[in-house]
Amino acid sequence: MAVLRYMTSGESHGPQLTLTVSGMPSNLPVDSEAINRDLKRRQGGYGRGGRMKIESDAARIVAGVRHGFALGSPITMVIENRDWRNWTEIMSPEPQPDYSGKRAITRPRPGHADLPGVQKFDHTDARNVLERASARATATQVALGGLCKGLLGQFGMRVVSHVVELCGIKADASGLTYDEIARRAERSELRVADPSVEDAMRELIDTCKKEGDTAGGIFEVIVTGVPSGLGNVMNWDEKLDGKIGQVIMSMQAIKGVEIGPGFEGARLRGSQVHDAIYHTADPSELPDGHGPSGGFYRKTNRAGGIEGGMSNGEPLVVRVAKKPISTLMQPIASVDFQTKEAFDSSKERSDVCALPAAAVVGEALISYAVAWAFLGKFGGDSLAEVRRNYGAYVASLG
Amino acid sequence: MAVLRYMTSGESHGPQLTLTVSGMPSNLPVDSEAINRDLKRRQGGYGRGGRMKIESDAARIVAGVRHGFALGSPITMVIENRDWRNWTEIMSPEPQPDYSGKRAITRPRPGHADLPGVQKFDHTDARNVLERASARATATQVALGGLCKGLLGQFGMRVVSHVVELCGIKADASGLTYDEIARRAERSELRVADPSVEDAMRELIDTCKKEGDTAGGIFEVIVTGVPSGLGNVMNWDEKLDGKIGQVIMSMQAIKGVEIGPGFEGARLRGSQVHDAIYHTADPSELPDGHGPSGGFYRKTNRAGGIEGGMSNGEPLVVRVAKKPISTLMQPIASVDFQTKEAFDSSKERSDVCALPAAAVVGEALISYAVAWAFLGKFGGDSLAEVRRNYGAYVASLG
Amino acid sequence: MAVLRYMTSGESHGPQLTLTVSGMPSNLPVDSEAINRDLKRRQGGYGRGGRMKIESDAARIVAGVRHGFALGSPITMVIENRDWRNWTEIMSPEPQPDYSGKRAITRPRPGHADLPGVQKFDHTDARNVLERASARATATQVALGGLCKGLLGQFGMRVVSHVVELCGIKADASGLTYDEIARRAERSELRVADPSVEDAMRELIDTCKKEGDTAGGIFEVIVTGVPSGLGNVMNWDEKLDGKIGQVIMSMQAIKGVEIGPGFEGARLRGSQVHDAIYHTADPSELPDGHGPSGGFYRKTNRAGGIEGGMSNGEPLVVRVAKKPISTLMQPIASVDFQTKEAFDSSKERSDVCALPAAAVVGEALISYAVAWAFLGKFGGDSLAEVRRNYGAYVASLG
Amino acid sequence: MAVLRYMTSGESHGPQLTLTVSGMPSNLPVDSEAINRDLKRRQGGYGRGGRMKIESDAARIVAGVRHGFALGSPITMVIENRDWRNWTEIMSPEPQPDYSGKRAITRPRPGHADLPGVQKFDHTDARNVLERASARATATQVALGGLCKGLLGQFGMRVVSHVVELCGIKADASGLTYDEIARRAERSELRVADPSVEDAMRELIDTCKKEGDTAGGIFEVIVTGVPSGLGNVMNWDEKLDGKIGQVIMSMQAIKGVEIGPGFEGARLRGSQVHDAIYHTADPSELPDGHGPSGGFYRKTNRAGGIEGGMSNGEPLVVRVAKKPISTLMQPIASVDFQTKEAFDSSKERSDVCALPAAAVVGEALISYAVAWAFLGKFGGDSLAEVRRNYGAYVASLG
Repeated sequence: MAVLRYMTSGESHGPQLTLTVSGMPSNLPVDSEAINRDLKRRQGGYGRGGRMKIESDAARIVAGVRHGFALGSPITMVIENRDWRNWTEIMSPEPQPDYSGKRAITRPRPGHADLPGVQKFDHTDARNVLERASARATATQVALGGLCKGLLGQFGMRVVSHVVELCGIKADASGLTYDEIARRAERSELRVADPSVEDAMRELIDTCKKEGDTAGGIFEVIVTGVPSGLGNVMNWDEKLDGKIGQVIMSMQAIKGVEIGPGFEGARLRGSQVHDAIYHTADPSELPDGHGPSGGFYRKTNRAGGIEGGMSNGEPLVVRVAKKPISTLMQPIASVDFQTKEAFDSSKERSDVCALPAAAVVGEALISYAVAWAFLGKFGGDSLAEVRRNYGAYVASLG
Repeated sequence: MAVLRYMTSGESHGPQLTLTVSGMPSNLPVDSEAINRDLKRRQGGYGRGGRMKIESDAARIVAGVRHGFALGSPITMVIENRDWRNWTEIMSPEPQPDYSGKRAITRPRPGHADLPGVQKFDHTDARNVLERASARATATQVALGGLCKGLLGQFGMRVVSHVVELCGIKADASGLTYDEIARRAERSELRVADPSVEDAMRELIDTCKKEGDTAGGIFEVIVTGVPSGLGNVMNWDEKLDGKIGQVIMSMQAIKGVEIGPGFEGARLRGSQVHDAIYHTADPSELPDGHGPSGGFYRKTNRAGGIEGGMSNGEPLVVRVAKKPISTLMQPIASVDFQTKEAFDSSKERSDVCALPAAAVVGEALISYAVAWAFLGKFGGDSLAEVRRNYGAYVASLG
Repeated sequence: MAVLRYMTSGESHGPQLTLTVSGMPSNLPVDSEAINRDLKRRQGGYGRGGRMKIESDAARIVAGVRHGFALGSPITMVIENRDWRNWTEIMSPEPQPDYSGKRAITRPRPGHADLPGVQKFDHTDARNVLERASARATATQVALGGLCKGLLGQFGMRVVSHVVELCGIKADASGLTYDEIARRAERSELRVADPSVEDAMRELIDTCKKEGDTAGGIFEVIVTGVPSGLGNVMNWDEKLDGKIGQVIMSMQAIKGVEIGPGFEGARLRGSQVHDAIYHTADPSELPDGHGPSGGFYRKTNRAGGIEGGMSNGEPLVVRVAKKPISTLMQPIASVDFQTKEAFDSSKERSDVCALPAAAVVGEALISYAVAWAFLGKFGGDSLAEVRRNYGAYVASLG
Repeated sequence: MAVLRYMTSGESHGPQLTLTVSGMPSNLPVDSEAINRDLKRRQGGYGRGGRMKIESDAARIVAGVRHGFALGSPITMVIENRDWRNWTEIMSPEPQPDYSGKRAITRPRPGHADLPGVQKFDHTDARNVLERASARATATQVALGGLCKGLLGQFGMRVVSHVVELCGIKADASGLTYDEIARRAERSELRVADPSVEDAMRELIDTCKKEGDTAGGIFEVIVTGVPSGLGNVMNWDEKLDGKIGQVIMSMQAIKGVEIGPGFEGARLRGSQVHDAIYHTADPSELPDGHGPSGGFYRKTNRAGGIEGGMSNGEPLVVRVAKKPISTLMQPIASVDFQTKEAFDSSKERSDVCALPAAAVVGEALISYAVAWAFLGKFGGDSLAEVRRNYGAYVASLG
């Protein structure tokens, strides 16, 4: 029905996370191994603490797929909490008469959802907020992204991510093809395509760890093969850049997003920013990563693939700023929300840096945004129908 | 009904722009003069070309308001095109048998919606796209913002904007209260709160004009007085930062958004980024711009007022990157989409810089995002009901 | 973008009604004369009072259409209140310092929105509710329907309505083709396809008028040429019967809806209700009103064209129960909501019966529901694209 | 966030059904036993076949609830298929290389989603449609209803259902209080409040069974204690009757809905239909089932509790027409969609009548519609906040 939508649920230490997605065309191949590979990619990266090992997430499909193909009905995937048996009393959905409220968490951590969350929801235990606000919830979004990539892949689109800056250390991926970026990032524990900075990044993470500090940074997501005309210039809430803005800024710990050079572009003059338009009848002349657009193309891509809220055939290029992890081993001042007493927030252990994982989540959410715009344009209930509609549109472009 | 939504319509040279807003509580005072002042602010700024003078926009309320108060029904405002009589033949909704298709625009301007738009919508005249993609359409969003500011003002919230960087020239507003920023920005043709850079900015615009070039830059929007708990950590599509991301990235010519230090923050360590939490029983100790949050506050505001997708009582601080205007007097290469012949895109005259105007549009859209989250939390059909609900919540915070 | 949505606004005695529709494909011919013919049909019918003559509604297109074709941008139509100059003081959006609140309406009419409306919206003047609750607001929905019929017509669908029962007097249209029903209903002041009952109906209306009473009844809307597969069995909120249920039950004065024999069918056994399925390779063998369905058809249509929440190729048949008009010349007891004093509600004049008009509104809303499901299935941004997608689907059915 | 929404998924013979609900206030008690009682009520009733015994559904809460209270996060419930081990090969989400496509169902059953479903979704096996179209999917809606009833119960609302007509045999519940209706219906295998017709109904079901036929009928859902002002007269898609129309007409096998006397009311004159308004300061004078409305009430309830798309304080009364079950032991003609050969559709066994179960589903969906309108009006993130907002509104009514 042309509207791709989803809901997720699940507390970090509850029995399971659940994802339900509606709008995927029937007969789409659904590759649970590919989805689980993405889940694994989310759990990796230099700088992660201990829990990642426990988890080893896997998505179990429980609805909407039969014999490896989508049915057209809503698809549900479950990611179980492998550690659930240790949490049954604390997190049981059922009443626990013997559970002591004294174990309630009343000390909000700066930078987290804890304090506004307990205020909004009238909670006396910050666990009731932090269980949902946990980064673990992003696993369902990665599963969603896996599904969406499966759709995009059917139409020649590919989603790539890499870390471009870690706590001030910049990587240089210029001159690389998107293919090379993907290959290098995939091989790197830090998801950087520039091996020359890996050691420095690793050292910085080690230093942070020693000093009880954390690091953030900037990653980039690229989508290649996008046809011209996704998103809609005519309505604010159908613009592709607006949708990307929403999905990315709603990600945990994300504080900035830009398309193309973004903030840097705002410092330049118009003559330095806009991309001249060319045309060729020879597909082999099109630049790396180009999608169907009737032979029109740009030699530069400072628009990041979007003009007027619509894809223009060039690769989408989105850069995302992630703040350092909020849970520190160093103390930060805070206040108990019950007693109003000041205390020093600190934890004994924590991840130091989750930027590579965040890049995988970013891939997933941008895959969703593009799939949403794609199905919004092409409609169709079955893969065959979407394929017909897409093919005829591409042919109409010349 | 707690869902604030809107639709806009209208072509730039059509008879009128139209805004319809649903969800405003009944008995809200609606001040059409305040709305028109905002419309005027959108039309000002150093660096604008000629059309702004012709327009002199005014919103006429035609539904949903009686005797200066909202009825609870959808509110419609009309902004007429004062120049419509010169465009009736070209833009008439009715068939024009004598209109010659030869006047069709087939030469897409780089950086505009023109090319992806004609491809998406199967148009042979780029006017059919550019009329809607025009910056003029933002007038309806400014009118929307005026309405929303009226609501926010009832609850002690205020929306301020200023230009913080113009084509690489940075303004320094540090140390100023939000009140001072607002006052200074309002007095400045460039919406900067730092008079020391105004001359340089003006000169840069003059240089651009001479050289047929254009300039963009960065503006900041601040909302003060926001209560803790707007937006929702529990669902991706109810997060306040996500909504801000969407409304801002869907704005014309916007290529980046950040909340708090954003990209700069991503370069720092956790210990430099997170805001320690304090508590006071004495409201006079709260920092400038603080909203109701039960006495909890931060001395720094590097979160930009949002933790976990929810407001935390600190002022919202959003920074926005606008690319330079796409229509240049300098030539950029392009291709006629009918003949496939190359040509040099250029215009005889154009605005050089519309950054101050964009800041006013940004104010409006962020006002909408905050009002959306506000009514989503407090519900209520009448102003009295919203006021009761809000007041009781604020009291519950302590 | 495959989601057809709309908003309306306007008070009955305000300056204008406004309709904004988003999602119509570009290049769709928009025939304002056809829309105005429908507006006129809404104003006719035996049993209407005086205001209908004053109104003589006409929709003026002010956005989204150029030279008779949709642009792909939102379409706005305005229906002006010809009597506005007599209402400017009472209904002005601007403050009226001299307007005396004493003229406030505090006496709620039974059967109207008055009492729950003033309670919900905290109003002290029931006019603030009744202006929007007025039947006049349906004019925007008829304009919407006109647009939608234009779309449906491009794909061989036709929407017919006729009155099947008026205050207990039943019409018999059995044995007639849908074409004959349409032709007869169009010629009849009462929209009945059965001339043998027209006199009795007219007499009943005259009697009601004499006795200060009002009449309601039942009308039927039929859509022919509907392809199999609109609506979606997989999700509750995408079912076609659910959408029809919503648009019809949200109509003013409507208290019941049924698809096919509905309540009568619930009294029969399964063997009497379900429609046997046949197949033919010869299109001329398909029953009257049949749409594309790969040669599958039913000789009966007790499902009313919908199985599993989806169209099945047979004509949609929807029957709608309208209560008698709530404003009576006979007194009904009521209570002043300010003084709590009892009074007798009665009016000096009123329409006696608006059933034929309601049938025209019903046509419009069902046209919208079908167009919504149609574009939801076929996607597409331009008429050419929708046509390609539709054509290929129909071909795929065999 | 004031928008109560839900998604369901799951195939009838798949591993599980899943419900996710967003928007329930935090700290709402969630009683899984009450929910499971409703699930059991859905499975009962005279006239059901064998599968109901196998199922014995129970909902397991896996998200959004802790220690018996809602967290404010999305709530997920899982209903497992107890018979899954017998279906793993046929319904596995994973590829089954050895599964023979020959077992595909290519014979569509009249009255089911089978034929339009395979056409829409390009399926070659009708199982891919019927697994989702199965009545079993309503179990998730009953679980949803259980949650919603928990909310409504906090605010004095109660939802009652009973069968009023079974295959033409009418029950007479006139003169009974809603309490008596509920009590009697609960005790009856047929959910009728009129014991005098139970034998006749049972006999009719037995006859149908013997003759291989099926029966439908009409049930009524009543909601008592509803405050005045739920739903919204101002927008078509926020009207309470429209929402009820949607949720009911989207139910499987439902072909008609009416509010109050509905179709019968359309046969009467205005003076017989509209409900006179009275006022009392003495709550004990209010009629049975009345909700908060400031002392205004009606002695009759022919509006069925809704005027102008809003609740008016009287009980909601909704009547629903269910067609006979589509799967018959008697043959109905149909056509194989692969071979185009005619065949006689029939089954060896089937339920004869599921009307009592449908009434339980109807309860659930109307509970959802009312809870949606309730939270839309009152907003609020926690039960305490909703309670404050509701209480202050009720007090404001006088």
